Amino acid sequence: MATSAEARLEELKLTLPAPGRPMARYKMAVRVGNMLYVSGHGPAKITPTTPVTGRCGQDMSVEQGKECARAVGLNILATVRDQLGSLDKVKRVVKALAMVNSTPDFLQHPAVVNGFSDLMAEVFGEDAGVGARSAVGHVALPNNIGVEIECIFEVE
Amino acid sequence: MATSAEARLEELKLTLPAPGRPMARYKMAVRVGNMLYVSGHGPAKITPTTPVTGRCGQDMSVEQGKECARAVGLNILATVRDQLGSLDKVKRVVKALAMVNSTPDFLQHPAVVNGFSDLMAEVFGEDAGVGARSAVGHVALPNNIGVEIECIFEVE
Amino acid sequence: MATSAEARLEELKLTLPAPGRPMARYKMAVRVGNMLYVSGHGPAKITPTTPVTGRCGQDMSVEQGKECARAVGLNILATVRDQLGSLDKVKRVVKALAMVNSTPDFLQHPAVVNGFSDLMAEVFGEDAGVGARSAVGHVALPNNIGVEIECIFEVE
Repeated sequence: MATSAEARLEELKLTLPAPGRPMARYKMAVRVGNMLYVSGHGPAKITPTTPVTGRCGQDMSVEQGKECARAVGLNILATVRDQLGSLDKVKRVVKALAMVNSTPDFLQHPAVVNGFSDLMAEVFGEDAGVGARSAVGHVALPNNIGVEIECIFEVE
Repeated sequence: MATSAEARLEELKLTLPAPGRPMARYKMAVRVGNMLYVSGHGPAKITPTTPVTGRCGQDMSVEQGKECARAVGLNILATVRDQLGSLDKVKRVVKALAMVNSTPDFLQHPAVVNGFSDLMAEVFGEDAGVGARSAVGHVALPNNIGVEIECIFEVE
Repeated sequence: MATSAEARLEELKLTLPAPGRPMARYKMAVRVGNMLYVSGHGPAKITPTTPVTGRCGQDMSVEQGKECARAVGLNILATVRDQLGSLDKVKRVVKALAMVNSTPDFLQHPAVVNGFSDLMAEVFGEDAGVGARSAVGHVALPNNIGVEIECIFEVE
């Protein structure tokens, strides 16, 4: 397996979406020293069937939620590359706060959020790509997106 | 426009409330190195009509929520000045996690949270005052406040 | 009172649970420089009656929620010792995001989260053990745990 994140992305045949633009008064990410603070991102509409909106336990199954969380990850990778010029500047995923649009009865937030975490591990590797994490349920998210994730990367 | 945050506050004729005191076992803010970690703050009761408590989508309109988020920002500014001696010690807003008291059907959290972000941009400027951000809905907040925001500032 | 956190733990006759293992794709904690980012933790089942699962305002009283939050703290201490070798390597609690499984009508999240914060103050002392904090209500948490807390420690 290639050791560069950009090379891995090619191996995985992953194409990143165009980097998102803020839909309100914030920046997509802010860097301080060697830490990149990434805003809460929603999912990219990768294919016509990518689950983007809906509530887990109601409109989204665990598998669909997982796919949605992976699509959030692709949006975040697009932001990170846009900010740093290359994903190869990432030293590690530090932490993520993963917020799942959830009914009161839905309890499998960690399985959903693995869609994001698996992607990060594929791109940055099993050590650097796996960070600290919280996965929790929210009563509502902006525009009814299924998953919103904010995270911190250590960067060169 | 004045370049000092304290001068801008005067220009804007904004008076900060008295800095809040913890209502439980925590500090209003903790500094480590050049980063100031600010606790989750609720809104200041700026005028008799400032919306302080209530749920967006039920007791609060988007406009009221926005006013509430701005009142949270004023409380946070009071804490930051209390901690640092002057708002001029702030280098930038790094990130904010903005938690909106929300019905399951409310979807306009970003518009609400702009009440906070617009204030920060007015006081610290369009670059330094605009940080990374997440805006999400919560089923309940302490004492039924409409908005709670925690944030990180880079400071001198 | 002893000034070492490990000595305090003995004085308090507190035994930490075995450190938890990730139940999904994440690390229990990640260190960058002098900051330890700890993943969202649930409560340890300290005694047969420790409240682990349930929703505040429905299945858990404020007192039970507080006990649950303390049990989260014990799990976090176990992780921190496991990561650093000794709790004496902790310089201070920087911040905590405390997420309480909550009905829409439950409003006493700060009282619940004091169960965690009181423990940190007992172990690390009134200054170093008390950090910035947010305490909020969530519609659902993984496996229906009562409280999930993520936090940051400054470490040697």
